[in-house]
This record gives sequence, C-alpha cells and structure tokens, in this order.
Amino acid sequence: MFRFERDQLKQPTMSSFQRELSIRFQDVDAAGIIFYPNVLALCHDLYVDFLAAHGSPLHETLRGPWIAPIRHAEADYLRPLRFGDRVSAEIVAAHLEPEAPTEVTLGYRLSIQDTVHVVAQTVHTFVDPATFKRVPVPDVLLKAFASLGG
Amino acid sequence: MFRFERDQLKQPTMSSFQRELSIRFQDVDAAGIIFYPNVLALCHDLYVDFLAAHGSPLHETLRGPWIAPIRHAEADYLRPLRFGDRVSAEIVAAHLEPEAPTEVTLGYRLSIQDTVHVVAQTVHTFVDPATFKRVPVPDVLLKAFASLGG
Amino acid sequence: MFRFERDQLKQPTMSSFQRELSIRFQDVDAAGIIFYPNVLALCHDLYVDFLAAHGSPLHETLRGPWIAPIRHAEADYLRPLRFGDRVSAEIVAAHLEPEAPTEVTLGYRLSIQDTVHVVAQTVHTFVDPATFKRVPVPDVLLKAFASLGG
Amino acid sequence: MFRFERDQLKQPTMSSFQRELSIRFQDVDAAGIIFYPNVLALCHDLYVDFLAAHGSPLHETLRGPWIAPIRHAEADYLRPLRFGDRVSAEIVAAHLEPEAPTEVTLGYRLSIQDTVHVVAQTVHTFVDPATFKRVPVPDVLLKAFASLGG
Repeated sequence: MFRFERDQLKQPTMSSFQRELSIRFQDVDAAGIIFYPNVLALCHDLYVDFLAAHGSPLHETLRGPWIAPIRHAEADYLRPLRFGDRVSAEIVAAHLEPEAPTEVTLGYRLSIQDTVHVVAQTVHTFVDPATFKRVPVPDVLLKAFASLGG
Repeated sequence: MFRFERDQLKQPTMSSFQRELSIRFQDVDAAGIIFYPNVLALCHDLYVDFLAAHGSPLHETLRGPWIAPIRHAEADYLRPLRFGDRVSAEIVAAHLEPEAPTEVTLGYRLSIQDTVHVVAQTVHTFVDPATFKRVPVPDVLLKAFASLGG
Repeated sequence: MFRFERDQLKQPTMSSFQRELSIRFQDVDAAGIIFYPNVLALCHDLYVDFLAAHGSPLHETLRGPWIAPIRHAEADYLRPLRFGDRVSAEIVAAHLEPEAPTEVTLGYRLSIQDTVHVVAQTVHTFVDPATFKRVPVPDVLLKAFASLGG
Repeated sequence: MFRFERDQLKQPTMSSFQRELSIRFQDVDAAGIIFYPNVLALCHDLYVDFLAAHGSPLHETLRGPWIAPIRHAEADYLRPLRFGDRVSAEIVAAHLEPEAPTEVTLGYRLSIQDTVHVVAQTVHTFVDPATFKRVPVPDVLLKAFASLGG
C-alpha cells in the first residue's frame, strides 16, 4: 500500500465521511461481481459528495484557480460486491504533509454491515490548471480534511 | 421508429461503414447480456471512427466552428449480445433533408455473422457551439454521409 | 416516438415515481455534456428503484421465474445536462395492453426545476429466462404500473 | 507500489504484449482528461486480449474450473490522457511465486510515442469458483506469463 496500511484503513474510525449506496445493475461484469475499476468510481463519487458537503462543490471549483488531478490510486479487493448489495462507503483518513501541503492522500473503506469488502486510497495533487505547477491545498479543504482521521 | 423503419435497417446494404468489435467483459450487466445503453455507446464509437475515416476527427472538430449534439436516439434490441461476441457494427444509412440540411439521421446495424441483433438510429443537429443556433452540415460531412445509403 | 408522444411525456402528471439525482463527474463526455447513452442508464437506475419500492427488487427477481429484457429504448434530448446538475427523474407513464399483457412501455422525464431536459421510453418484454417465451406481466408489477399514468 | 517499482514498469522491455488503442469520447470526465478508473478498464481490456491471444479466451474460461478475481490494483498517473490520444498499451511484466503459484501480478504501461503516461499493476488470484479456495495457475497461463518479462 502507498501511504496507508491496509489494516489501518480496515479499523473502525471515530470520524469519517459516510454515504450509503447500492451496487448497480450495470456495475458488475460478466463474472457477476463488481468490475474492479467501478469500485474506484464509487470512491470518486464519495469524494465529490465530500467536497460538496464541505462547501467546495467540484462542478464549481473546476472553473477555479486549482484542480486536483489524481496521481496515484489503488484498491484492495478483500471480498466481492454484487448487484443490489447495500454498501457503507466511507472516507476514513486524509494525509497531508505537515508543512505547506500541495497534496492529499485519502483513504476509503467499503463495508457491508461490519464486514470490510474494499479499502482504497487516492493521491490528489493540487495544481494550477494553466501551468500544472503545484499550488497549496486551499484553506477550505485543509479544514475539510482535518475533519477526517489520518 | 423515427426516420428509418426497422426493416430498412435490417436489409443488407451496398455501402456501409463497417468495423468488427467484441463485446467487452464490463459491457454486460447483472443479467449477463449487454447493458442496453452500452449498445448506443458502441454506435457512438462507430460514429467517431466514421468521422476520422472521412478526414474529420471528432477530437479535432470539437474545438471547431460546429458541434453536432444528439437530439434523438433509439435502438431495437432483437437478440441479446454477450461478453466475447464478435460483432459486425455498421452505419448503414444517412438521411439529410434535400435542401440546406442542418441535421443528419444515421442508421446502425449490429450483426453476428448474418443475424441482425440490434438496429439503431441517432439524429445529430449541427449548431454553433457559442449560440447553439443551427448551422449547415459541413461539406466534408455531406460527402461522407453521401457514401452511405439512406 | 414509439408508444408515447413526446409532448405527452413532457406534461406534468398527477402520479409519477420520482427521484432526485446529480449528474456525475464521469457521466459527461469530451464535449462537456452528458454522454447520451448515460441518460438511459439513469432511466434504468430509476426503474431499479421503482421495482424495489414496489416490493420486487431486481437483484432478487433476476433469479426468479421471469426476466424483462428491453426490446426498444429511445430518448429525446431537448436540453443538455452537465456535471453537477440536480435533476428530477420521473417515471411518468406505463402502458400495458388491455388484455393479458406480456409487455410494458415506461415513459421517463428528466427535468431541472420545471424545465424538461429529456424524455425517454423503454419497452420491456416479460419472458421465461430458460425458453425466452413470453409470460404474463406478474400481478405485483401490474399493480405497480397501475400507480403510474399511461 | 505493490510488487513492481514504478521505474521498473517505465523501462523499455524486450518482450511485452502490446495493443494500440484510442482514448474514447466517453472515457474522459468533466475535467477533460481520462476518468482515472477508466485507465484500469483499458488495462483489463488488454488482459482480455492477452488471454485470447494465448488460447485462453476469458469468455470461455469463465465457465471453467478456475476464475482469477483481482485482489489488488493500482495505477500511477504520470501524465494525462485525453480524448483522441493514440496510446500504446502494454503488459510489460508478470510475476509468479517460484513454486506452485496461485497468483500473478501483471504490470502495465500506457505510452504516447515514447513518453510513459501511466504505469499500473493488478494482482489476480486463481480460485475455484465454487469454493473460492486457491488453485494453481493453469499451465497454459504459466506459459503465457513466461512470455513476458518480470
């Protein structure tokens, strides 16, 4: 694993951003389980909800002074997810460098009841959309990320 | 059906734009057959190939003086398509108004060997991207569409 | 249009099945508006919610004595949908033959506030999954469809 | 990185499985670059082609005595991919345990001309589909994987 250890992301957390979702009819593949890239799409949906809940909706900031493309993503598929499964999707951790951070690593956990099915993490680098040079993580997001563990 | 009759699109044609493709692992749904909107995605892939083959690649014209959003699409699913099926995908017809056309209807057929599995059609309206007012179909595309039946 | 007239689907209805949804980051295409097949995927998500709300969740009935593959689908794209748009998605109509129906046509409307952006319809044929021979629409769904206009 | 170092996957290789592909209109997101999970979908398409080219087409083996679900996947996004980009997609490495392997790690590289845009890796565990207990990697695939570096 990249920043977070798998076991760290599996632990119950005091503070997480959580949504309930259902695995869709079209999310599965010919083997009848979720097509593995679609799990990362669910993580991104959760990230979009997180940004909106913290006053920084992505469809507005896309036109703004920074973008945060993903430079690394990974997932551990511990148990399969199938059509109709009700899943608790959580952002359970955020890691920022201690000084002048330009990057955040987010940790995700997808569970059915108390059983963890997937843990994942994504690394977002904040850049100027014109030059792709790194810029500081905006204050509004520093506060948002601080609401998570990490 | 909108412009083309289903039986018209099912007939063998003298001139069509054709590609071989495979139904992908992730194109199917929890019922094990192609998720029906994905059939229209295959038609759009074919349209993108058609534009490129006629000197008007969509990734270049997107920045240009016209765009051609779809205002209607439909498909008849005659037989299922499954993961691994080898499909002949064809644009079999194009319809333009006789004078000063600003719109084209394209007809599609997806077959396995000589058995038709899907027929579909899409209506594209040519507009100025700034004003969304209709503009004439560009000459390069008039010629391309004339290479098809219709 | 197939069964329903476009204008019929645009009219406000007394009884519809309705959900709020957001157009996702990944639903759009390189032109920045929703990739048109994805609109039909949203309609299918709504259909899955409708079945569950009427006691017939698709992930359970998929193993059962009937399936209802789509034999026709179509959509009219009246206005674009973009990332972040909040949409009211409704099933506004259901059509069944008057006697011994084996097929249903469902009408959909996607609106932003009171402006209709898309109308669509899908035709589902009920068949035995082993033989693909037509079977009657199950009673539980006859009642569900009767809750809609049409 | 999991099994392979990023730099290892970036190096030119003597033997790889290679396909040319184009980034599709619908592969990008509202930021105009490829939606990051879609890169892993392209890797899976390549894996499906690899299996078929080595006499073990996935749509046939899915019914067979083993399946190979993914238990880990990760990608490094070094440079963006956009609609219309022509990409060389390669499986550049395979790692098997030295004795009685039940698992393979595959390394991928996506390049435009000689510039690497993405490296990725997936870990597939071979299991009995009925019991999900590990089974040996089949001989036909041991030979296929041996044709790659790693």
